[in-house]
Amino acid sequence: MLTYSFDNKGKDSLYEFLYKSIRDDIVSGKLKTDEKLPSKRALAEHLSISTITIENAYNQLVAEGYIYSKPKSGFYVSAIISPAVQGSAVKNIYPAETDGADEVSYIADFSNNLASQESFPFVTWTKLMRQTMSDKREKLTFNSPSVGVRELRCAISDYLFQFRGMTADPDCIVIGAGTEYLYSLIIQLLGRDKKYALEDPGYRKIAQIYKANNVAFDYIPLDENGVDTTALKESMADVLHISPSHHFPTGIVTPVSRRYELLSWVSEAEGRYIIEDDYDSEFRFSGRPIPSLQSIDTLDKVIYINTFSKSLTSTIRISYMVLPKELMARYRKELSFYSCTVSNFEQYTLASFIQQGYFEKHINRMRNYYRAQRDKVMTSIKNHPYYDKVSIKEEDSGLHFLMSIETDLSDDELTEKARGRGVNLSCLSRYYHNRDTAPEHTLIINYSGLDKDKIDEAVERLFECI
Amino acid sequence: MLTYSFDNKGKDSLYEFLYKSIRDDIVSGKLKTDEKLPSKRALAEHLSISTITIENAYNQLVAEGYIYSKPKSGFYVSAIISPAVQGSAVKNIYPAETDGADEVSYIADFSNNLASQESFPFVTWTKLMRQTMSDKREKLTFNSPSVGVRELRCAISDYLFQFRGMTADPDCIVIGAGTEYLYSLIIQLLGRDKKYALEDPGYRKIAQIYKANNVAFDYIPLDENGVDTTALKESMADVLHISPSHHFPTGIVTPVSRRYELLSWVSEAEGRYIIEDDYDSEFRFSGRPIPSLQSIDTLDKVIYINTFSKSLTSTIRISYMVLPKELMARYRKELSFYSCTVSNFEQYTLASFIQQGYFEKHINRMRNYYRAQRDKVMTSIKNHPYYDKVSIKEEDSGLHFLMSIETDLSDDELTEKARGRGVNLSCLSRYYHNRDTAPEHTLIINYSGLDKDKIDEAVERLFECI
Repeated sequence: MLTYSFDNKGKDSLYEFLYKSIRDDIVSGKLKTDEKLPSKRALAEHLSISTITIENAYNQLVAEGYIYSKPKSGFYVSAIISPAVQGSAVKNIYPAETDGADEVSYIADFSNNLASQESFPFVTWTKLMRQTMSDKREKLTFNSPSVGVRELRCAISDYLFQFRGMTADPDCIVIGAGTEYLYSLIIQLLGRDKKYALEDPGYRKIAQIYKANNVAFDYIPLDENGVDTTALKESMADVLHISPSHHFPTGIVTPVSRRYELLSWVSEAEGRYIIEDDYDSEFRFSGRPIPSLQSIDTLDKVIYINTFSKSLTSTIRISYMVLPKELMARYRKELSFYSCTVSNFEQYTLASFIQQGYFEKHINRMRNYYRAQRDKVMTSIKNHPYYDKVSIKEEDSGLHFLMSIETDLSDDELTEKARGRGVNLSCLSRYYHNRDTAPEHTLIINYSGLDKDKIDEAVERLFECI
Repeated sequence: MLTYSFDNKGKDSLYEFLYKSIRDDIVSGKLKTDEKLPSKRALAEHLSISTITIENAYNQLVAEGYIYSKPKSGFYVSAIISPAVQGSAVKNIYPAETDGADEVSYIADFSNNLASQESFPFVTWTKLMRQTMSDKREKLTFNSPSVGVRELRCAISDYLFQFRGMTADPDCIVIGAGTEYLYSLIIQLLGRDKKYALEDPGYRKIAQIYKANNVAFDYIPLDENGVDTTALKESMADVLHISPSHHFPTGIVTPVSRRYELLSWVSEAEGRYIIEDDYDSEFRFSGRPIPSLQSIDTLDKVIYINTFSKSLTSTIRISYMVLPKELMARYRKELSFYSCTVSNFEQYTLASFIQQGYFEKHINRMRNYYRAQRDKVMTSIKNHPYYDKVSIKEEDSGLHFLMSIETDLSDDELTEKARGRGVNLSCLSRYYHNRDTAPEHTLIINYSGLDKDKIDEAVERLFECI
């Protein structure tokens, strides 16, 4: 039976310590592939801790793909490097669509996954801004270094360490006005002759940015564990751009075995890199956030990128990336002539916001807020007479879930019909480059921006359209 | 004799009305090339206005190149489209230098032409920020359109009309976090297959940006009137990137005749554009600001670009461009998927700052401040025993002037020696791509950032180095 001494668990909670201990035994090979783990109750008795603690640890290991469960049998160790599966890279030329700048007002908008702006702590932010303007006036007279002010980079580094378990040297962090701008810096850094691999389905803007920058890219299909590595290898891409912790829009969490496969891919040729876009990792509802790919990358080949525009408010345009040391040196040599695109005093304000614990509080509050939103939407859906016509998946993280429905309408007809009724819908198929492989009749239900008093009406209208 | 009725001068001052009337007669051909203008005294008597008014109008016309003066003879009408002159485009491969992100502290820094930050109205700005945060909370919950919030675009349009005599449709303005970012948008907009023409000498960062974006460019030498049009034509460039109102670092103001030549060049082939970088047009010390190239462009081929980071404070990263209608349509179609890089509430704060007249006040105050700085530096130089070893030029505008000196040292030796004495110098030759044509021993004296109590010491140290 698994035996761990909790004496040296340090500051970790029991559950966290147990999770890490089992994980380490899996990674080191002490626990073998397909080995059965003790039942929750047996292990709880053996270690003299509660069953709930064991359950939490097991759930986290399942979520991250270290173990898997067989119904009515128990938990087993996953194969950490599993052979890659079906599918191949697709390269047709379906034109990327443009969102346009038009603002249309809907009664219910399920297509928008923006963070709720009303919950932004305006009062605190204003207070910190005022403090920055008066206390930091001396510092404000100096221009921000190209990579951003040191105070903010240190605050981000501390935050990543404490809440994401990541080691990010403040001197390897680059601040920029939005991830889109940072992508363009990465393109300049890696060279325009590199070929990029994008997820299909995926966030369409990423393809638009590479296209606008005249950079070659392939779409790589996903299987249930994320990017299909066979297709990735066939594409001859140099740089893989992914969201392994919570893929948009499918919600797939890439398990650790696939993550190691991706790291293996990156090590196979010179000049390969992975861009890890971790845009909404803060908003998982069960267990700890999934560890980032960057944190298990010993090769220094992962560019980690994240934004405060999602987690804080899109009113603020501040994003950051953590560069591998080699790329950071190249940045300093070749690109540090660029001025930082974020205003000095916004950087200092955000640094105070993080340092004084407001960011953590905000994240916790928002996580609860979004969970309540999700629960309200789910309840509303479950109570609807037509509930048997839909099925829901991937509801445990992020600001959206998927809902597949029974209908004779095509996705385009459905979207059009909904629009006529003041409901903005977006279908999963819309995010596929290769639409032949796209599942029909699967709606992306973004609940983060919904007005909570209108959720019942929004759901009612949604069902009316189906 | 020139006769103008002042009855319909409207809100213009006498001097302004006279300047415009004569200018229009020159452009329309009523006044012929090399025609002599009446003497100031004669015209003053004829029109019954003061000689000072005539003098101001003539000076403005000279500054803009509509007329020229012959010593002891009088004022004559310039040739508006003059034949192009000597020189040819140079295309050697001198590597662009990188400034790096290092911050070194000098006793006197003449190499830095940043706007003085201490003069930034922190109190007003903080007040407006607070107002924005409380009064505009509703608006702040909407994301900024890709091109920036309408309120700011309207404020900029009004400002450009009132103080720069420009017509800029708010719907043709694009806001971005710094001109460097806007350049990258222009590259994406015009296409990466275009060839760019840059001024030599010029602001080195511009070349670095084009290089980092893998865009082909040529350096075009300048003659005394700005970009050498013969060389420009030979270069086969598609896009000309210039600062005609006050070239950095030479201080050249491109006269109107050359401006028309440039507009003529742009009309000669499909797909040609001029990027007019008007970065410090606000800080001319005599006469009105030189009209922008954009304002005399009837072909809609000039992209006007300006920044608040120079005129207001580099703490704020807000710049804008005015696109020709055709390019604006292309932007909306192809690039409006980009999020605006400037935070929402900074945009609203700046809009209020402009609308409530604070920006104009700030510019006026800064103009006086810089003039006083310049005068103090000039006085200090003139009172120095070695004054006969230097000569000064281009001191009427911008935040720097040129000073050529007699010395046996090379520019590199001079800079090095100065650095050893805690003085940061930059030489004009440093801004030449083709250094063979660069004048030696010409210093760029940036006075904007100098501590006014240390000017005498700074000048003393400067002379010690020579």
